Amino acid sequence: MKQIFFVLFLLMASQIYAQDSNRMHRIAKIKVDAKQLDVYKSLLNEQMNTAIKVEPGVLSYTAVADKKDATSIIIFEVYASVEAYQSHILTPHFKKYKDAVKDMVLSLELIDTDVVCLAKKENF
Amino acid sequence: MKQIFFVLFLLMASQIYAQDSNRMHRIAKIKVDAKQLDVYKSLLNEQMNTAIKVEPGVLSYTAVADKKDATSIIIFEVYASVEAYQSHILTPHFKKYKDAVKDMVLSLELIDTDVVCLAKKENF
Repeated sequence: MKQIFFVLFLLMASQIYAQDSNRMHRIAKIKVDAKQLDVYKSLLNEQMNTAIKVEPGVLSYTAVADKKDATSIIIFEVYASVEAYQSHILTPHFKKYKDAVKDMVLSLELIDTDVVCLAKKENF
Repeated sequence: MKQIFFVLFLLMASQIYAQDSNRMHRIAKIKVDAKQLDVYKSLLNEQMNTAIKVEPGVLSYTAVADKKDATSIIIFEVYASVEAYQSHILTPHFKKYKDAVKDMVLSLELIDTDVVCLAKKENF
């Protein structure tokens, strides 16, 4: 009986590992037109909160701005998989955002990344 | 009675807001000597996990590497406050890490940031 539980535990653990290792971690570096910064930030907020709410595969967004240059925005994005990301960019809310900000974004750099280390407090 | 609960709720909410708004969000961009990359990553992992475990004010580390250049590491760091960060860099584990990696790190850029938007799944 103990052996069955052990095998089940291993299966579950490998499942969780497979889920996590499928994740897509991307960084987006965005330069925004200073005159339209407030509107841009509000559209970004709307897009992010909608995606997190309605898309199971959109896991986390962290958007920050350089203290020395508020128009330099860096977004750290986590998707459940590449497929989840590909599905995300076809959603109405993402297309609406992309269209609305097209004249506000001066440059966009996308950096696909591999995880080196994730460490955080349990309740963070 | 209801009013007392409402005032207590407001006080708690403002406390949580004050805690969150004190947080320090920093990005570190590190270029590592390719020949020492594996050793560097293991020292980084050790430092991060120790800090998260023993320091109440170290909240979260996310370290990733550019898929196009594994020696380009980007770390997103969250501390409870500037004071928590200042205390962190005086700890034995941080000093040990800094000393051990000094000939592995080819360049280091620190970017202090302001939060634009945080959105994530509840269980993320």
